[in-house]
Amino acid sequence: MKITATEIFKSIELIRCQSPVVHNITNYVVMNNTANALLAIGASPVMAHAEEEVEEMVNIASALVINIGTLSEYWINSMFKAARQARKKGIPVILDPVGAGATAYRTKTARDLIHSEPPAVIRGNASEIMALYDDKSKTKGVDSAASSEAAIDMARRLSETHHCVVCVSGPTDYIVDKEKILKIKNGHPMMSRVTGLGCTASALCGAFAAVERQPFAATAEAMAVMGIAGEMAAEAASGPGSLQTYFLDDLYRLSEDDIHRRLKVED
Amino acid sequence: MKITATEIFKSIELIRCQSPVVHNITNYVVMNNTANALLAIGASPVMAHAEEEVEEMVNIASALVINIGTLSEYWINSMFKAARQARKKGIPVILDPVGAGATAYRTKTARDLIHSEPPAVIRGNASEIMALYDDKSKTKGVDSAASSEAAIDMARRLSETHHCVVCVSGPTDYIVDKEKILKIKNGHPMMSRVTGLGCTASALCGAFAAVERQPFAATAEAMAVMGIAGEMAAEAASGPGSLQTYFLDDLYRLSEDDIHRRLKVED
Amino acid sequence: MKITATEIFKSIELIRCQSPVVHNITNYVVMNNTANALLAIGASPVMAHAEEEVEEMVNIASALVINIGTLSEYWINSMFKAARQARKKGIPVILDPVGAGATAYRTKTARDLIHSEPPAVIRGNASEIMALYDDKSKTKGVDSAASSEAAIDMARRLSETHHCVVCVSGPTDYIVDKEKILKIKNGHPMMSRVTGLGCTASALCGAFAAVERQPFAATAEAMAVMGIAGEMAAEAASGPGSLQTYFLDDLYRLSEDDIHRRLKVED
Repeated sequence: MKITATEIFKSIELIRCQSPVVHNITNYVVMNNTANALLAIGASPVMAHAEEEVEEMVNIASALVINIGTLSEYWINSMFKAARQARKKGIPVILDPVGAGATAYRTKTARDLIHSEPPAVIRGNASEIMALYDDKSKTKGVDSAASSEAAIDMARRLSETHHCVVCVSGPTDYIVDKEKILKIKNGHPMMSRVTGLGCTASALCGAFAAVERQPFAATAEAMAVMGIAGEMAAEAASGPGSLQTYFLDDLYRLSEDDIHRRLKVED
Repeated sequence: MKITATEIFKSIELIRCQSPVVHNITNYVVMNNTANALLAIGASPVMAHAEEEVEEMVNIASALVINIGTLSEYWINSMFKAARQARKKGIPVILDPVGAGATAYRTKTARDLIHSEPPAVIRGNASEIMALYDDKSKTKGVDSAASSEAAIDMARRLSETHHCVVCVSGPTDYIVDKEKILKIKNGHPMMSRVTGLGCTASALCGAFAAVERQPFAATAEAMAVMGIAGEMAAEAASGPGSLQTYFLDDLYRLSEDDIHRRLKVED
Repeated sequence: MKITATEIFKSIELIRCQSPVVHNITNYVVMNNTANALLAIGASPVMAHAEEEVEEMVNIASALVINIGTLSEYWINSMFKAARQARKKGIPVILDPVGAGATAYRTKTARDLIHSEPPAVIRGNASEIMALYDDKSKTKGVDSAASSEAAIDMARRLSETHHCVVCVSGPTDYIVDKEKILKIKNGHPMMSRVTGLGCTASALCGAFAAVERQPFAATAEAMAVMGIAGEMAAEAASGPGSLQTYFLDDLYRLSEDDIHRRLKVED
């Protein structure tokens, strides 16, 4: 399977035109960034975590993004409630298992969510994806210590068991399901010096999944856009501060030609 | 009623000189932006939401801004407690009913706050303002779907019933009370692609209400400054990332001459 | 005691090379900034506040930063739990008593933390430091109203009683322990118009304490880097918005030569 610049840009145009509501239950650190990235690409972010309203908010959303970056019991309950409602309504759920493997609490929460309410897409770095399957892997905080290559096997097994798409992100992003794999080689090393760009990638997966019915293609498109806007921003930036600023500008201005010239995809 | 560039700038000078403490009980997404906007204009933001301390914090504040963007039970209790104390102390309360109409929980919370502790100023987009009065209006997330014109009637009724100023913000901002209306036509469409600029407007209403005793004038001045700094930033920006950065710079540097040249106000 | 540009840069190189995990239990307003500052200097920030996981997160961290800027009961419990575990593991704890003196709740929390789990470093402005000792001092929000000079005596007594380093930050930063004092005169007035730069300073103390075993030197180095990057950013900035952006860029790019040319330290 391949994705083309034309297909990616068609999805961007749909996002800009439909402005789909993307409901985020995410961590405190990145709420602002991810809301801004969703707005920049053309979506309508909402953030709501109260048990009293998550189901109703899911009902007006076209995708749900769950990110476990700053967990507590109250939020976990809302995550389950929202995921259940999203599945009932048939809207795609994206799970970002931030820090899975770093503590038992995160690992368990991510695994329980996957078992009880299988998401359409799981996006994490190699350590996090491995922690969803393998008790022996250990994350160093929220960084990726494990090799991406080693995580692909876990990703495929996860995909087979739970019928979901798994994205192992890193210098190369691997989009995996039980039958196929796609590699995206866009991005820039300086992106790892800006907090929440992984979380932003997951949020963008939500925006693309809202307009593109195939979760595999939606994830690939989102990761390509993430990498392309990120490398454009990094090339112009003097450091991670300006990278974050330019990244939002570039998401907003991204043209079909930018994507055409830069897209590095392999199957 | 009219407001002039000279009056607006006089209030800015008072804010810069007095550095009034503005107490914010606001949502997680925008806390950073709104604190930065308050600092940039010259005020002293504080954020505190614990039931144990909100009353004491109100006691050292010159205005209280309540924003329901990411609600939960604990925060709602603190909002009521703080609003009650603010009314007792006679300091102005600004209410931002973010997402009212999107879920019953938000609509109810906003209405209950207004009924039990009527604020000096309510600022929201057309959908949100309509949801405070009309059960049939429905918000699409936190965006404005309804026409501003249609919301003005609701705003006037709200103002009559609760003796408050209501601002319906949008491409044109309407400042409404039971007797008069003022239209501010500053701003730029790209501002809607930056998260939390509506919340920032409400925070600025708090800063102006802290130094200007007439809530109607304070609201009009804040909205004019918001629109002027926003359009200056948008004209220089390459996208929503740089817009946010320049917006804070422009708030900080805003001169009487900038306001004089750009102010678009009509009654 | 003196610190030199060479020593400071050696610590930066250690941070960049070791990428130490710095665990932050901090306030909602600044989480994003402080995570970005830690990434820009080369550290690995993690944010985790759930009682279920703070001890485990401390176990993989090289420093713990506790900031009381947006307190509530649940967070306070986690702060104590994490601080206890950090002391047990022998990793340095940095305490930022944001707003101590503004409300009894904050003052009590900060004092209780210090008494029960003495941190390696306390960093606050003059008002906050005085409030840790003196019931008569009163903070105006989170700003520094008190004179830094007056706070130094309190800092020394605090240091004697609890065997910690105390940093009184302001136009001049004073690093104090029971025997010595160091003054750092870097920085720029515009920095006070950006939210969370004090909190960022405390986070950087965590990064330096993770690689430099003497808390006094670590604190002095962190405050020097903070002031130098801040003044470089402020000189290039058009206002507080661009200051924040450039600050992260400058932290990322900081060279030994930058430090050598700019360092203003006195004992």
